[in-house]
Amino acid sequence: MSEWIAAAQEGAILWLWQMDGGPHPLEQHSASADTPEALAETAAALMPGVGGPIVACGLPQAGFRKVPCAPLDSAPVELAQSPRRIAAIPGLAQESPAHVTQGAETKMAGFLALNPTFDGVLCLPGTETAWAHVSAGEVVSFQSFATADMARDMAARLGLRSEAWDEAAFLDMLSEVQARPEKLAGRVAGIRAEGLLAGLSENEARGRLWGAMIGAEMAATRAYWLGQPVAVIGEAALAAIYASAVTAQGTAPLQANGREMLLKGLAEARERLG
Amino acid sequence: MSEWIAAAQEGAILWLWQMDGGPHPLEQHSASADTPEALAETAAALMPGVGGPIVACGLPQAGFRKVPCAPLDSAPVELAQSPRRIAAIPGLAQESPAHVTQGAETKMAGFLALNPTFDGVLCLPGTETAWAHVSAGEVVSFQSFATADMARDMAARLGLRSEAWDEAAFLDMLSEVQARPEKLAGRVAGIRAEGLLAGLSENEARGRLWGAMIGAEMAATRAYWLGQPVAVIGEAALAAIYASAVTAQGTAPLQANGREMLLKGLAEARERLG
Repeated sequence: MSEWIAAAQEGAILWLWQMDGGPHPLEQHSASADTPEALAETAAALMPGVGGPIVACGLPQAGFRKVPCAPLDSAPVELAQSPRRIAAIPGLAQESPAHVTQGAETKMAGFLALNPTFDGVLCLPGTETAWAHVSAGEVVSFQSFATADMARDMAARLGLRSEAWDEAAFLDMLSEVQARPEKLAGRVAGIRAEGLLAGLSENEARGRLWGAMIGAEMAATRAYWLGQPVAVIGEAALAAIYASAVTAQGTAPLQANGREMLLKGLAEARERLG
Repeated sequence: MSEWIAAAQEGAILWLWQMDGGPHPLEQHSASADTPEALAETAAALMPGVGGPIVACGLPQAGFRKVPCAPLDSAPVELAQSPRRIAAIPGLAQESPAHVTQGAETKMAGFLALNPTFDGVLCLPGTETAWAHVSAGEVVSFQSFATADMARDMAARLGLRSEAWDEAAFLDMLSEVQARPEKLAGRVAGIRAEGLLAGLSENEARGRLWGAMIGAEMAATRAYWLGQPVAVIGEAALAAIYASAVTAQGTAPLQANGREMLLKGLAEARERLG
């Protein structure tokens, strides 16, 4: 396999990686571009002289495939041939309740390429967190949650800047909101009050905020994954939060790096492009 | 009662009103200032020549009073005497669960000045929404929710710009999330998916988002207010959302304008200042 470019749209950010035949990127870039044309121009500007096709995920132009299905089709969707060949992995779609993936399907494909016999539930934290039931190489069903977006917005409103948090505060609030998920917005308001009244530290506040947000998600997903193997696939900090929450339920999850699974999934699609 | 200046800190905004003896302001200004000194300077710059004291609410410098207590003390807290007299109404505080008010206590005072025999639950939507149990002129207990902040942040992330919403979509989601509040973050993610898959309109999306957010709050507060008289005290759009949600539970709430109740509460404090 010769050189090619891997790309992923994640929220407002477009990631680009220069690849050769191996699993690790030679270079990484970020930019903003939301059409195949802009993607080709961005790649030419950032990586002049790098040839081969662009294989992308997270682009709505590639459409969506209805579950149940394998996370990766026989070949990605061809979006352009000139000035450069661009192909993209379609997202997954579920009609009822309505959910889509935009990139999580590619991480699932990467994970299943490395763990072809995995049967259980994948937890994929990101801009949205997806929980997918996987069996016999197919995604049977999934659901997604806007938890991380909501937690980051509230952290900004509460003036919490650090990435560190107090684990005890996290676990306390996790268990409290999981038992009473309707209390979520009240517990978030309480963090502001405790900052004013009781001198809550920033790390405690951040632990409580994430505990409350993830606690509500655990209440919603617990029946979906309990008693099955669970794998958490995400970036370090966010994956650690989810792994800690799943572990608190008595299930020790497998863990895989989100970026590595994404690149593995894109490489799988590159091979199928021919 | 001669001229004075009413002021209220609401989130990042400081509101200032030029008052004479009557209930309605002669002028309204908004600015940003978060100390008594900055408040005095801002008032001098925006309303030169206007004399009398400044009576403010929403300032943490005034401290907090523990419930149960009347929403307004015998006199507001004096924060400065020169170059201008500044007094502020303390917020209310509850230790467990921890909640504070920063301005809602003043609207409660205004409402109780006009409705001294009210016994029931006040719902005060704002930056945070407070629900307060009021009896014999005192606030017995209260709780607050960061619902509106969270809904506005998610509306921005979903690209929803209008203020209009589809009432049927609102009521559908209200009832769904009230019954299953742990589904909140999942339903918010579903709005994005339905926009991509099913061409959900912006008004439907906004209705669903607010329905989901308020539905979770209704699940948390319903036992607190059901079977009691309820009064919703807020600005037009947000008050209408809450009044609609309370009405959907079979309780027709009283409604009062938030700004008018705030100014009435500040005027009550002005009278007690002597």
